[in-house]
Amino acid sequence: MSVSGMKKQLHKASQLLNERLMGDEGTKLDEDFLKMEKGVSVIHALLAELLSRTTEFLQPNPAYRAKLSMLTTMSRIRGQARATGYPQTEGMLGDRMLLYGQKLGAASEFGGALTAVGGALQQVSQARDALDVSVKRSFIDPLQNLHNTELKEIKYQLKKVNGRRLDFDYKRRRSGKVPAEEVRQAWEKFITSKELAERSMFILLQNDVDQISRLATLVTALLDFHRSAHRILLGLHGNLQARLTAASNKRERRFRSKKIRVRGDHSSNIGFYDQPSSGSCSGDQFTVLRSRPGSPNSSYALGSPPSRQQQSRGNPSYLPPFLQE
Amino acid sequence: MSVSGMKKQLHKASQLLNERLMGDEGTKLDEDFLKMEKGVSVIHALLAELLSRTTEFLQPNPAYRAKLSMLTTMSRIRGQARATGYPQTEGMLGDRMLLYGQKLGAASEFGGALTAVGGALQQVSQARDALDVSVKRSFIDPLQNLHNTELKEIKYQLKKVNGRRLDFDYKRRRSGKVPAEEVRQAWEKFITSKELAERSMFILLQNDVDQISRLATLVTALLDFHRSAHRILLGLHGNLQARLTAASNKRERRFRSKKIRVRGDHSSNIGFYDQPSSGSCSGDQFTVLRSRPGSPNSSYALGSPPSRQQQSRGNPSYLPPFLQE
Repeated sequence: MSVSGMKKQLHKASQLLNERLMGDEGTKLDEDFLKMEKGVSVIHALLAELLSRTTEFLQPNPAYRAKLSMLTTMSRIRGQARATGYPQTEGMLGDRMLLYGQKLGAASEFGGALTAVGGALQQVSQARDALDVSVKRSFIDPLQNLHNTELKEIKYQLKKVNGRRLDFDYKRRRSGKVPAEEVRQAWEKFITSKELAERSMFILLQNDVDQISRLATLVTALLDFHRSAHRILLGLHGNLQARLTAASNKRERRFRSKKIRVRGDHSSNIGFYDQPSSGSCSGDQFTVLRSRPGSPNSSYALGSPPSRQQQSRGNPSYLPPFLQE
Repeated sequence: MSVSGMKKQLHKASQLLNERLMGDEGTKLDEDFLKMEKGVSVIHALLAELLSRTTEFLQPNPAYRAKLSMLTTMSRIRGQARATGYPQTEGMLGDRMLLYGQKLGAASEFGGALTAVGGALQQVSQARDALDVSVKRSFIDPLQNLHNTELKEIKYQLKKVNGRRLDFDYKRRRSGKVPAEEVRQAWEKFITSKELAERSMFILLQNDVDQISRLATLVTALLDFHRSAHRILLGLHGNLQARLTAASNKRERRFRSKKIRVRGDHSSNIGFYDQPSSGSCSGDQFTVLRSRPGSPNSSYALGSPPSRQQQSRGNPSYLPPFLQE
């Protein structure tokens, strides 16, 4: 720091001390200026809140967010450029449904329904990915930019205004010892920087249209997401209703006869279940009756005619061949 | 444990050891039974996944989930019965917008828009609360119930089948020393419990319609949520467009003349800004031009006619009254 710079700092510090300790009154900035300054500080705090809350809205689980940034750092170190996105909860739920739908097999109506729901949820997850990208690009990034440039600059300008104000007030206080020309110059510098800050603040606060249109793009992105999700789920809903009807109408269910292999006798059909099938009950009862497993009538609530196997129940006195010998 | 019970345990352990160590082959259960057993274990794993993933979907941030359960426990201890729900991210974002909308004041167009968006987001948050309640009641709770009762019972029954199978195989292996009647009884017990387990598994696996209709209620709840959210945001979108038009058309912006109080002279109008206003520029330039603050023309990009204040800029040679004396 130059000698004159150091001197200036001393002047300012002296004036500040006088004001703080001696109750000396410095030059007051006008009401409008102070009002704008307050408005700017509200915008500053608002931006910080909007940035963090919107991120939280898009990526609610901080654990995944953290892992994700770790991952991208690691990938960068390893020279990989994988585009790994935030794991959407719809996607994770859908993924599990697809997996277990496959495990249950194509023959299972439930498995088929799971696969359908899982697929739709993955589509919703993709729509949410698109929402993320859109909100990031058209809302978060511009706000971040505003925060990092305009607001940073205004903060710097306000600091400058205060410094020059102190310098002017110091010289004014000592107006006998300081030449009038120097006081005048200090005043001009103070007023110039005040006007600069005022203009920047005015522009920021005046920019309502810009801020509102940013809010509007956020709302449009949200609207698009919910519209897509609604459309996807509406298709799925129809699909599930059809499956439900199909499953309700499925009356018959066959069992192959059971074989229990006893001691090396791999082919012995124990023949427990060889009574002829008789009786039937309506599939319509299906959704109404739900008996507990193990209760005597539970087999009859299934909507399928009692199988041969079920006829043999309650008569456990059949013997396997080797005991009948 | 009774002596006979202990004896039975010993028999089973002996048989298990024989099978594991000596490669002794036990009675094989039929293919269909094993297939059902596999199906049941898939359903078991599926339910666990669905329960955790659906919870994660509804309440993505585990930190809030944990705090919430802490909170309810604490409330219970304190005897409070506060119904505190999971904090939806839409609600938190909306809450901040409402707060800062208020801080910016009714005069600010941006503040008004923020308040509108915040209010709508809180409505979306309420719709999500309704989704939570609905999914909890019609999807998570029934699945949890299925997991805790039917599946638990089947697991118990399967364990019993295996125990009785070991007992039967032990007695069959020692058929010389064990009376035939006792072997027959062991067989009957084994087959009875096998049939019981089989029936329970059959019912569970047969219950496709129940499982599919649960999936359908989940989808319906999601559909309702997205429909509500879409409806709320559509109204908001119109509101914002109107505000945007209003803000764009707002051409005039007045400043009160600035007063800088210098040393006790509380009423001295420094009179910097007393040149008459002249010239005007169109409000249509507003969204097109965005000059950086501090640039000489920035004041003219605002869509308001240059104020008296702006006319005086670039001429900093005015002096405050005390210096003009």
